Amino acid sequence: MMTRPAEADRAAILKSSSDLLSAVNAGDVDRVLAVWAEDGVMMPPHHPSVEGRDQLASYFRNLFSQFRFEFVFTSSAIQIEGDLAVERVTYTASALPLAGGPPLGDAGKGLHVYGRQRDGTWKLVKDIWNSDRPIARSA
Amino acid sequence: MMTRPAEADRAAILKSSSDLLSAVNAGDVDRVLAVWAEDGVMMPPHHPSVEGRDQLASYFRNLFSQFRFEFVFTSSAIQIEGDLAVERVTYTASALPLAGGPPLGDAGKGLHVYGRQRDGTWKLVKDIWNSDRPIARSA
Repeated sequence: MMTRPAEADRAAILKSSSDLLSAVNAGDVDRVLAVWAEDGVMMPPHHPSVEGRDQLASYFRNLFSQFRFEFVFTSSAIQIEGDLAVERVTYTASALPLAGGPPLGDAGKGLHVYGRQRDGTWKLVKDIWNSDRPIARSA
Repeated sequence: MMTRPAEADRAAILKSSSDLLSAVNAGDVDRVLAVWAEDGVMMPPHHPSVEGRDQLASYFRNLFSQFRFEFVFTSSAIQIEGDLAVERVTYTASALPLAGGPPLGDAGKGLHVYGRQRDGTWKLVKDIWNSDRPIARSA
């Protein structure tokens, strides 16, 4: 494998996160999956882990049939060691229910874990996030 | 720096996670902080990020004044590259309110990011988790 400078790795990872964001905001399952490693694990809040390409495809198909998203990454800090990278992000998001009703807003933070693949590309292997906002309690 | 075999690193990281767990379950702020890097960032659900030792100390002091915890890590998978390690965990937890009332139960997943320090020890640099359970809605 060709040795690439850290700046090229950093740029590739930022590009992957940017691709993920625009794919989610476009509601495009195929483009979302293109960012993910085959055995990637997504860890959404208030939902069990979504493991591997088939589960990811079902999850996003279902999600995009219900909501139109506008995610923004408001900060990014990347640490790279060898074939492993961790990106710490903060985000704001709104989710517009396609069945009608007002958009749901959120702001929070997350970690993207990227792995360098055999072909030299960086793919998402883990994605976890949670909201900064308190849970609205009924009582 | 001495080159150490991967198994020693893995054992050191598992030990740190085990120390964290027993410190949280004992409500011992000093022992929790001993696992954390000076500039570590904790990313709790429904709460802003807690950044650096001072904020971590305040956060845990406040938390342990309100709850007695029983956390269990139900699985662990560790990936190590150079001075960076990512541990994927699943957990079950109960939090007993010290003011009285029934314990609150939870089950979820998280990522521990560890960094190898100059002295060779592994310290926690990021910790993020979230619940598998749906949010109870009032409506």
